[in-house]
Amino acid sequence: MAVVVKFGTEPGKGSRAGIERLHALCSDDLNKVNEVILRRMRSSVELIPQLAGHIIAAGGKRLRPMLTLAAARMCSHKGDRHIALAAAVEFIHTATLLHDDVVDDSALRRGRATANAVWGNKASVLVGDFLFSRAFQLMVEDGSLSVLDILSRASATIAEGEVQQLVTANDTATSEQAYLEVIRCKTAALFASACRIGAVVAARPRVEEEALESYGLNLGIAFQLVDDVLDYSAAQATLGKTVGDDFQDGKITLPVILAFRRGDDEERSFWRRTLEDMKQDETDLASAIALMERHGSLRDTVERARHYGSIARDALGIFTDGPEKAALLEVIDFCIDRAY
Amino acid sequence: MAVVVKFGTEPGKGSRAGIERLHALCSDDLNKVNEVILRRMRSSVELIPQLAGHIIAAGGKRLRPMLTLAAARMCSHKGDRHIALAAAVEFIHTATLLHDDVVDDSALRRGRATANAVWGNKASVLVGDFLFSRAFQLMVEDGSLSVLDILSRASATIAEGEVQQLVTANDTATSEQAYLEVIRCKTAALFASACRIGAVVAARPRVEEEALESYGLNLGIAFQLVDDVLDYSAAQATLGKTVGDDFQDGKITLPVILAFRRGDDEERSFWRRTLEDMKQDETDLASAIALMERHGSLRDTVERARHYGSIARDALGIFTDGPEKAALLEVIDFCIDRAY
Repeated sequence: MAVVVKFGTEPGKGSRAGIERLHALCSDDLNKVNEVILRRMRSSVELIPQLAGHIIAAGGKRLRPMLTLAAARMCSHKGDRHIALAAAVEFIHTATLLHDDVVDDSALRRGRATANAVWGNKASVLVGDFLFSRAFQLMVEDGSLSVLDILSRASATIAEGEVQQLVTANDTATSEQAYLEVIRCKTAALFASACRIGAVVAARPRVEEEALESYGLNLGIAFQLVDDVLDYSAAQATLGKTVGDDFQDGKITLPVILAFRRGDDEERSFWRRTLEDMKQDETDLASAIALMERHGSLRDTVERARHYGSIARDALGIFTDGPEKAALLEVIDFCIDRAY
Repeated sequence: MAVVVKFGTEPGKGSRAGIERLHALCSDDLNKVNEVILRRMRSSVELIPQLAGHIIAAGGKRLRPMLTLAAARMCSHKGDRHIALAAAVEFIHTATLLHDDVVDDSALRRGRATANAVWGNKASVLVGDFLFSRAFQLMVEDGSLSVLDILSRASATIAEGEVQQLVTANDTATSEQAYLEVIRCKTAALFASACRIGAVVAARPRVEEEALESYGLNLGIAFQLVDDVLDYSAAQATLGKTVGDDFQDGKITLPVILAFRRGDDEERSFWRRTLEDMKQDETDLASAIALMERHGSLRDTVERARHYGSIARDALGIFTDGPEKAALLEVIDFCIDRAY
């Protein structure tokens, strides 16, 4: 049975700083990536392409595979190995999203029902496993042990970050340092690997691999910090996400950590009640946002993101100027400008 | 923090036909496999070795890694590559068990609380992902693309089998053929791969790889068929499992398929009520077993298992006689004799 999957960004979604240039630059390659994705999520078990197609077509930006594509081109890669590897990166990302939504009991992702809401947690866990396996099959077909090493390490790191996040959920004593370690693992490791393999397929020197890894790592940290800001921000509504998901889940993100540490005893009682004891009423989210505004914790989380963005920017310094480098630099602005 | 994990079979567990010779033969290698397992499930995130150690130490037979060890030795492999790969096989198996227990909402495995019962579904899903990634890291370190190909394909196949099982759950119209396809994927594919990589590390000709794959595949089918019989059998109680889990979950296994197809209208109503509509009372499991006895469906499922066991036996015909071959042949008897 054929499963129809619509790709492409939603109206207005491509209009923010930075992503358009990257998108235009990668457009042909990205179409090929989408073809690989469609072909390789096929299975005689119909539920697999149905469920996978639902989340893969759900309006994702394809940011991670585009990073692989642009990095490979910036490194003057002439072949097409980056296509299948970009698809592998997207499969790993999709597998983690499926498992994340189960772990978070999420009902909505990008304004649509999550796969677990439609088909149940069980199917989401197993189809995630399938996509994860497919990602490794794509890498094995490519045949580079370096790429396999980079992405298998990233996958283990992502899982460690997710478990650590689970452990620190509801703990208002979480430090900024511990939080940074979680997002380095759960988000930034895949950004870093997606970029690094661009240099690997182009057989560039190790210093360029490491520069791209550093770019991706710091970009990923900035991306996640802004994501955490958006969860408390009005700008979020335009992204089709619900504001306050993290709050409802008792997730301790940097905006909370800063507000908690800058607050007085009464405020800390508020955070403990709502995020540790999970006793929340309908006015609490507004109160949480007001406390964050009072202490500038959303603004300063974006400031922190800018810092990592700067490191990402300088990491690209060793590469010759060109359209791919310009696009990758603009992605940094895109990740941060989303906050507004 | 150190996590103490006790390995080794439980009292009386090693006394059945076949497994003891294999165990004695692999004993030194298996100790090394256990060391690799302990070392590679470490993480700075403490919950990971805690949870992984709980299931890995839970009295498993280590059957799959022992198949890799014995196959490699039968193929005259002189190095120690089979050690890490056997550990990778066990990690993949453990990851699927963790996810299975979440999917089945299981509370007990081998008489102990499941990881999901102790730490919750979320942690089980994520630690499963971690172990799965670690398995690939071990394979990447080994460096054989053939092994990576074999085990990444097996992993995708396992996931397909699990999804298919989910789809056919509660469907009494499931055919024997469809059921066989599910167990070929969810169970036998990993047995087959575990055996095949023994020939790969020993750089044996393809015909020997394929013989070992066939041995493992058919052994795995026989193993699962008997497992499904045990779920309705008194012998089960001695294995520390609960009788009737499959019945309670509405799983359609061969004993049910045969009883359903051999039964009359009234009996089919019984199966539909209990396994499709999931309306079960406390006398229904006994009635189900009585119907199976009446139609010889447990006995005949074991007969079917013997058939696959015979194919497995003949697959080993091309190998020279020796202690490893003898042990692998005895495993076939072990898998089937468990039914009694």
